[in-house]
Amino acid sequence: MLEALPPEERLALWDLVKADRDGEILVEVSEAVRESLIEAMDSKELVAAAETLEADELADIAADLPPGVIAEVVQALPAGERERLRAALSYPEGTVGALMDFEHVAVREDVTLEAVTRYLRRMDELPDHTDQLFVVDREQVLRGTLPLARLIVSDLELEVSRVMLPESVRLAPEDRAEDAANAFERYDLVSAAVVERSGRLIGRLTVDAVVDYIREKSAASQLAKVGLREAEDVFASVLDSFRNRWAWLAVNLVTAFIASRVIGAFEDSIVQLVALAALMPIVAGIGGNSGNQTTTMIVRALALGQIQAPYWSKLVAKELGVALLNGVVWGTLLGLIAYAFYGNVALGGVMALAMTLNLMLAASMGVAIPLARSRFGRDPAMGSSVLITACTDSGGFFIFLGLATLFLV
Amino acid sequence: MLEALPPEERLALWDLVKADRDGEILVEVSEAVRESLIEAMDSKELVAAAETLEADELADIAADLPPGVIAEVVQALPAGERERLRAALSYPEGTVGALMDFEHVAVREDVTLEAVTRYLRRMDELPDHTDQLFVVDREQVLRGTLPLARLIVSDLELEVSRVMLPESVRLAPEDRAEDAANAFERYDLVSAAVVERSGRLIGRLTVDAVVDYIREKSAASQLAKVGLREAEDVFASVLDSFRNRWAWLAVNLVTAFIASRVIGAFEDSIVQLVALAALMPIVAGIGGNSGNQTTTMIVRALALGQIQAPYWSKLVAKELGVALLNGVVWGTLLGLIAYAFYGNVALGGVMALAMTLNLMLAASMGVAIPLARSRFGRDPAMGSSVLITACTDSGGFFIFLGLATLFLV
Repeated sequence: MLEALPPEERLALWDLVKADRDGEILVEVSEAVRESLIEAMDSKELVAAAETLEADELADIAADLPPGVIAEVVQALPAGERERLRAALSYPEGTVGALMDFEHVAVREDVTLEAVTRYLRRMDELPDHTDQLFVVDREQVLRGTLPLARLIVSDLELEVSRVMLPESVRLAPEDRAEDAANAFERYDLVSAAVVERSGRLIGRLTVDAVVDYIREKSAASQLAKVGLREAEDVFASVLDSFRNRWAWLAVNLVTAFIASRVIGAFEDSIVQLVALAALMPIVAGIGGNSGNQTTTMIVRALALGQIQAPYWSKLVAKELGVALLNGVVWGTLLGLIAYAFYGNVALGGVMALAMTLNLMLAASMGVAIPLARSRFGRDPAMGSSVLITACTDSGGFFIFLGLATLFLV
Repeated sequence: MLEALPPEERLALWDLVKADRDGEILVEVSEAVRESLIEAMDSKELVAAAETLEADELADIAADLPPGVIAEVVQALPAGERERLRAALSYPEGTVGALMDFEHVAVREDVTLEAVTRYLRRMDELPDHTDQLFVVDREQVLRGTLPLARLIVSDLELEVSRVMLPESVRLAPEDRAEDAANAFERYDLVSAAVVERSGRLIGRLTVDAVVDYIREKSAASQLAKVGLREAEDVFASVLDSFRNRWAWLAVNLVTAFIASRVIGAFEDSIVQLVALAALMPIVAGIGGNSGNQTTTMIVRALALGQIQAPYWSKLVAKELGVALLNGVVWGTLLGLIAYAFYGNVALGGVMALAMTLNLMLAASMGVAIPLARSRFGRDPAMGSSVLITACTDSGGFFIFLGLATLFLV
């Protein structure tokens, strides 16, 4: 509801929310909306809200809180929680450490299931998403896991070590969140242990955090493609929106300007055969579209780990094959149309040839750009669309007008 | 591994997979790869593989199996499973019914937790993702849920009715999978009951199915935007790839052709002032980019239910405001550049004005197209990028060349 309301109505509703739920809600809303809510609160309210949060939740919103508020909340935290907050804040975004929580239940391997059950009963409630207990030794080193479903169906007189699963998915806090999400998807996990290099259990990752991550990641990559820096508050001010969007438009301006200069170099040819001006955007546009198809497919395959070094050449060969087929089919069609409109056979031929060549350029760049970005450890999706379009626009104009200048004027 | 290998290597690996895992793997791989694996199996192997699957899994791959294989497998199924398969197949893709499974554990409310525990112990293993038991009456009507975490910490002499949660998320098989995924995300669910209108429990939805759905949905929407009909096998044949991609390129061809005719109508102006040919792609290109930013934001807000009817006008006003600001900033800049290159003040002015008007067209269409599509019950993302680009290309050429014809030639 808060996200779907314009600023005034949003703040009116926010005032009606019970203070003890403020913290929880700040964690749930999107970053842009969180900022608008935090701006409307004084530091006393913020401290009260932050104090209701667990260390891992606090870490999620810490970047948006004023430093004074953070300092006050940290001071009030018990030593253990403070240590956890420090740990959670120390891992960069996009790692398992930034997503994990600390609410796991740990047991020893040399006790009976009976004792474990008694221990659990003394807790009023188990933490959310407790599908398994973690079995640790005296040094907190993870020895295995004990799924609740297994605990319930087993003989209570058995020792934990007899019933636990010694092998299970373990994550390191430095692992990429993307890889952890793939593991959750592949092995259908509800929770997984997070262990330090020494094997010491430090927390757990749960499927709800993974679902949130997948959703945000997918939104972020869609936004990144068109050059939005962050998920924008639907009712952001005009100035905030402008700030969120300008960078990409500026890049686009530069690439469009380069394409314009390519055309400028062929002005003489255009004056002699003005049909070129009308036909050139077709060559460029279809190249861009086809290049974007190739890139989208490659980005997805890279994310799923489906592209391995030995098979790159097969991939490029296939994409070039598709481009050639597309070029022959659409190029011939467009060549015929150009001939029908302008009655110039050579123009039709140039159109068909330019189209084919630009589609092959689009295919090569569509594979090369995301592969190169991922090789250098960058997000292959980011800006892929502008880069492809820049190549196919400038390239398409150059190929078409260049061929026309050679053969027609 | 299978997905990341070219056809020959893939089939060589597939031959090495133990036959009893064939079914499981066919369920997990993507549709495109599944087709390539199924083609390589004879019907005896397919029947053997299909017979290892649960009804809900069988329903997932049924569309890809030859009818003869399905018939044989269905005949071999026990009556209860056959009924489940029929139920699973009867719900269309994108509904809860198509995602649910039938492996829930149900108990009565008038028994003690002790009795429930004994009942569970008689099962060797609980189904995956059993975080809660479903409490039903004699008619299988859902009365509540009993989380395992609650069962473990409660006094075993209590009756189920005293411990169960009477209120919990219930889904109907006709519910949209998208809404169910939002509920899983919002309420951090691991499983949820699926009930018929009468209240009778028929199955459950688990978080692993939801995660798979979210992933596929997000991939599908990215693919749809650039006009790929389905997730393509990375090593598909050239002909298969062509078939997957041609439809969108054909649409693009038509829109590019229309834009070309718009330019054709102004050929006289271009001959008189050839700079127009070089500058016009800038106006069109930046409009397209900006329109795509608006659409991406609106599509996302629609998916999250953040756009309500009373606030549409605010939204349009905001987008027009951003467009105006962008137009003034970038229009002025481009006008100055045009002036610097061509020494023509009026050309600079026309450039700035055309840019601003095309950005405002982009903003209006960027809001209108996804809203209209969603009003008519269609996917707002599908084809949004081509439609926007068509408007801003043809519109941009028309505005710029029209203004130039009025004021410059």
